[in-house]
Amino acid sequence: MIIILKNNAPKQEIEKLIEGIEALGNITANTIIGEHSSIIGLVGDTSRINEDDIAASDVVEAVKRVQEPYKMANRKFHPDDTVVQVGDTSIGGTGLTMIAGPCSVESEEQIVAVAEAVKKSGATMLRGGAFKPRTSPYSFQGLHDTGIQLLLEAKKITGLPIVTEIMSIAHIDLFADVDVIQVGARNMQNFELLKELGHCDKPILLKRGLANTLEELLMSAEYIMAGGNQNVILCERGIRTFETATRNTLDLSAVPMLKRLTHLPIIIDPSHACGIAWMVEPMARGAVAVGADGLIIEVHNNPQKALCDGKQSITPAAFDSLMQNLRPMAQLMGRTL
Amino acid sequence: MIIILKNNAPKQEIEKLIEGIEALGNITANTIIGEHSSIIGLVGDTSRINEDDIAASDVVEAVKRVQEPYKMANRKFHPDDTVVQVGDTSIGGTGLTMIAGPCSVESEEQIVAVAEAVKKSGATMLRGGAFKPRTSPYSFQGLHDTGIQLLLEAKKITGLPIVTEIMSIAHIDLFADVDVIQVGARNMQNFELLKELGHCDKPILLKRGLANTLEELLMSAEYIMAGGNQNVILCERGIRTFETATRNTLDLSAVPMLKRLTHLPIIIDPSHACGIAWMVEPMARGAVAVGADGLIIEVHNNPQKALCDGKQSITPAAFDSLMQNLRPMAQLMGRTL
Amino acid sequence: MIIILKNNAPKQEIEKLIEGIEALGNITANTIIGEHSSIIGLVGDTSRINEDDIAASDVVEAVKRVQEPYKMANRKFHPDDTVVQVGDTSIGGTGLTMIAGPCSVESEEQIVAVAEAVKKSGATMLRGGAFKPRTSPYSFQGLHDTGIQLLLEAKKITGLPIVTEIMSIAHIDLFADVDVIQVGARNMQNFELLKELGHCDKPILLKRGLANTLEELLMSAEYIMAGGNQNVILCERGIRTFETATRNTLDLSAVPMLKRLTHLPIIIDPSHACGIAWMVEPMARGAVAVGADGLIIEVHNNPQKALCDGKQSITPAAFDSLMQNLRPMAQLMGRTL
Amino acid sequence: MIIILKNNAPKQEIEKLIEGIEALGNITANTIIGEHSSIIGLVGDTSRINEDDIAASDVVEAVKRVQEPYKMANRKFHPDDTVVQVGDTSIGGTGLTMIAGPCSVESEEQIVAVAEAVKKSGATMLRGGAFKPRTSPYSFQGLHDTGIQLLLEAKKITGLPIVTEIMSIAHIDLFADVDVIQVGARNMQNFELLKELGHCDKPILLKRGLANTLEELLMSAEYIMAGGNQNVILCERGIRTFETATRNTLDLSAVPMLKRLTHLPIIIDPSHACGIAWMVEPMARGAVAVGADGLIIEVHNNPQKALCDGKQSITPAAFDSLMQNLRPMAQLMGRTL
Repeated sequence: MIIILKNNAPKQEIEKLIEGIEALGNITANTIIGEHSSIIGLVGDTSRINEDDIAASDVVEAVKRVQEPYKMANRKFHPDDTVVQVGDTSIGGTGLTMIAGPCSVESEEQIVAVAEAVKKSGATMLRGGAFKPRTSPYSFQGLHDTGIQLLLEAKKITGLPIVTEIMSIAHIDLFADVDVIQVGARNMQNFELLKELGHCDKPILLKRGLANTLEELLMSAEYIMAGGNQNVILCERGIRTFETATRNTLDLSAVPMLKRLTHLPIIIDPSHACGIAWMVEPMARGAVAVGADGLIIEVHNNPQKALCDGKQSITPAAFDSLMQNLRPMAQLMGRTL
Repeated sequence: MIIILKNNAPKQEIEKLIEGIEALGNITANTIIGEHSSIIGLVGDTSRINEDDIAASDVVEAVKRVQEPYKMANRKFHPDDTVVQVGDTSIGGTGLTMIAGPCSVESEEQIVAVAEAVKKSGATMLRGGAFKPRTSPYSFQGLHDTGIQLLLEAKKITGLPIVTEIMSIAHIDLFADVDVIQVGARNMQNFELLKELGHCDKPILLKRGLANTLEELLMSAEYIMAGGNQNVILCERGIRTFETATRNTLDLSAVPMLKRLTHLPIIIDPSHACGIAWMVEPMARGAVAVGADGLIIEVHNNPQKALCDGKQSITPAAFDSLMQNLRPMAQLMGRTL
Repeated sequence: MIIILKNNAPKQEIEKLIEGIEALGNITANTIIGEHSSIIGLVGDTSRINEDDIAASDVVEAVKRVQEPYKMANRKFHPDDTVVQVGDTSIGGTGLTMIAGPCSVESEEQIVAVAEAVKKSGATMLRGGAFKPRTSPYSFQGLHDTGIQLLLEAKKITGLPIVTEIMSIAHIDLFADVDVIQVGARNMQNFELLKELGHCDKPILLKRGLANTLEELLMSAEYIMAGGNQNVILCERGIRTFETATRNTLDLSAVPMLKRLTHLPIIIDPSHACGIAWMVEPMARGAVAVGADGLIIEVHNNPQKALCDGKQSITPAAFDSLMQNLRPMAQLMGRTL
Repeated sequence: MIIILKNNAPKQEIEKLIEGIEALGNITANTIIGEHSSIIGLVGDTSRINEDDIAASDVVEAVKRVQEPYKMANRKFHPDDTVVQVGDTSIGGTGLTMIAGPCSVESEEQIVAVAEAVKKSGATMLRGGAFKPRTSPYSFQGLHDTGIQLLLEAKKITGLPIVTEIMSIAHIDLFADVDVIQVGARNMQNFELLKELGHCDKPILLKRGLANTLEELLMSAEYIMAGGNQNVILCERGIRTFETATRNTLDLSAVPMLKRLTHLPIIIDPSHACGIAWMVEPMARGAVAVGADGLIIEVHNNPQKALCDGKQSITPAAFDSLMQNLRPMAQLMGRTL
């Protein structure tokens, strides 16, 4: 960590600041005095120092962090890729994870039909929303516990592990048989939820918030990992920008950047990112090409009658065609599909 | 709501779409056929229609909403300003609400000292965080129930009503004696939390999310109001943009725009918006000048030793000076302070 | 175009508005009267109507455009892909265009060495900056006319057509022998420059501005095309967002979206988008996978000694390896390389 | 400037880097070796070093600038406020500058009528566009030289100095009698234009680009000042964000921040920022309250018939009322109006 001092900061004040910092232990401060500005370089364990607190000092002009503030998620300290095991399948290894299913679980007929179709096409996991975060209180909010029951029904029939979103820790008991718990973009910094999920033993699919940096995403993963749960899967699903042609802007550069910063697996959600069904396939190809470990895709047997997000759902037939088109691309990237 | 049809959409499909929409009841569809494009205008109660679901139809090019999707928060249907009563004081009337206090409650000595100081300067409410949303799991997370007890202690001594942030519905019982419950920016779309707060009888201070539009803010207010709780206070606290000179970009234009769209009171948080102590006063002046109903300001008796957000906290002396400088501005705007 | 009228707008005023619009010719107005709001649907040639001007009317609440405001760039009116011929090569056909070269032309030795190297690896065009847009007036600004002479020298030796950026119409004569003129991101809405380039007969490589929508990019292309020059090549080079891990955020979803909206070819600049050398290859793969017509890549024989943008430049050896790795990907996408 | 070195960077390579930097002269490098990372602190004149070039080195992880890259615009080196003299009036002193007039000059009748009206209300300068940057080539582009002639006519009649926008250096001769030359937001980084304006002796009104940081704005001012022209007036006119309720987001926090960073005067354009006529007055009040040196406001005698930007223009009557309402606010801020 580097502390840039104000011009003409009194020597005594600087020394007091250094004393205070070194009192935290395991930190050594080195001072460089320049004509126009002086700096203090901190060497050691700076993870417990908050930049803003240092910046509150009267003699400090700015504080800049050198080391990443996350540890357990940091590739520097864990060079090998994390592979998350989910039933018979895994996320983060050489296989390309394909998670498919409807935005919302609507009925047994619907979820089983979609599950059977996507399994036949090669999907490795089933997604489906039981609790739905909707901007409007007047929109369909999901089938809740019934939705989870129907997902488990579909799992029993197809054998596909299931992923579904949690919106409140109060519902955690309903997720006992769920294979992967999803934290949605709007809850990426719902820290109380993250802490609780750190104490459970299930893999967590953590989606990047609409306006969250990659560092913040990793800090949220760190919340879960610090609680003891190392099975975190990151998901980029589009960020909010000024562009309105697509619902969000899919940041595919997040994939190689995250691969460098962390050992956790990364998947891409092209459905929510673009919000348009016909864009799913080209962006899915792009995701595989930049090195994503998998995809999560909305598939609905009747998109025009979907209770939510029909605009971005593809049909089982389109998913089947997508899978066939992705296979050579996956192979090229050294992935099995 | 207006539906723009695709070129050469088959007449039969268009009719099917219209039938489906009109089946929802209380909606009439009018079709305008043009050379290059045709549109359907929907008249009636379109609040239950989801644009994206219509947009999923094969014959639809785009859907545009004409009416606001919020009702209870909408000034069109409630022309008079809402005034929220909090103990002896109120928010949204002719008075200018001044909420002041530390980012975090740290000790009885600290919170009582700050409370007494800001009361003397004219603050109408006391703020202080007991549960703190921190980006890092390694940062100070607040004193939790002890923090709330200390706030109540400070209230007993000063008579100032207290505002403090809730981070999980699991903690709701601890808030029984709190006067105003704050929903932080990161939880603005924590819909399960909003729903629960709709069932409680306390005023809710709802902060705008870092990347949320004013319409989304009003939809989140609508969640609370739809549950039966009409006492919602909106708070603009800076949005995330590309600019890095300030922590966030304070959107003061939100004040007159929200005043037009809704009847709910609006306050400004210049401390979190800019993240810099010396910017609090000029931006507080700006907030009053554009018509805000109040301010929420971080005050700490020793900013350099604050356990969080010291960089943006002002001292009790600076707050006292701010109050004196704000008085003529408030008067000019027809506000008592 | 759809005009949403204010509640209780006087009938007489509405009629006056309609008269004014229909007076422009070739436009028919249809009015739909609803309980809470009424709309006017305009059918015909609305390209000359400015939304904001209509929105200034006292009786208008909002105006929404249905048809795209661009015509010559619009795929609806020109379904076939435009293929831009540049010397022996072309952009936008089945071949994948590979433009490579240094950020700045620095010396004959440098530009010839890079040109020979990238040609050997399979590049189809040479890039190099003679006029450099730099944020700081104290940074190296390019070799100007000497830079162009050196590019022409490299062209003579290698046969590679050259692309270089124009920053002012005052320099146009210096570009007489340049093959493709580049308009940089910062000049995307330098409309006077665009108008002048509309009168020249050279292909124009038009880069998307840092904060410009795809529609604005197409409107800038329309400026050039309206002047008579149909040879416009679009280039996505990263947009400005809140994320700081990469210099900009590369918007690969722009490729399929632009392919749908326009018939013009689209290339990707991964070097400027990410600003980091090791990210060029993965993002180049992603670009090909989403359907880009080509890439423009910074290659420098000694990135550590580059006079600008060394951080994002790759070596000739890295470019050669990139080309080999891209070939099977290009083939998979039905492109020759 | 601080250079963060990669872990395990070879000592020899670090020494080579330091040698290269010190060879630039007037720079001393101090190295701090830590366990996990080492840093080099550069002390001296680092304004000619480009961060990205250093960052290209194999041994460098990151580079962080400590000192601002602008000098002539920097308040540190010029503590006193710059006051720009324009005819009998000045910008940046104790007076509040009020620039008013139509978006476009449309006719002699129009510009003279508006000029006389705004003068009577107390405006100190007249604005009006002769060259108009329009997104669409099919929109009205301004009256060009005739427009400037009409402005000069209005100046002769009213005595108001005139401000008008330049879009190309090719038109500079037409601006011989113009009092202040405006550089629009889209040309803020048209560096060739800025360089030329650095050689002229007229005050330049430099608008912040839609997605430009305050540092970039100051670097563009530096371009003009480095050429010899110290009379630069900065203008905040709204930045591009995700919010769509207003055309842009007016960043009023830019005023106090710029006041700290630079000695140049700063004015606010509430008309372009919000794009809505009724928002001009509240945001103008806010601008004065945060300490702006002036305002530039669009006034049109018939907004509904304006050839551009009618939606955001206010009538002369509304401007007169605005002036009366602003006076006590200006007085409160110690400004004469």
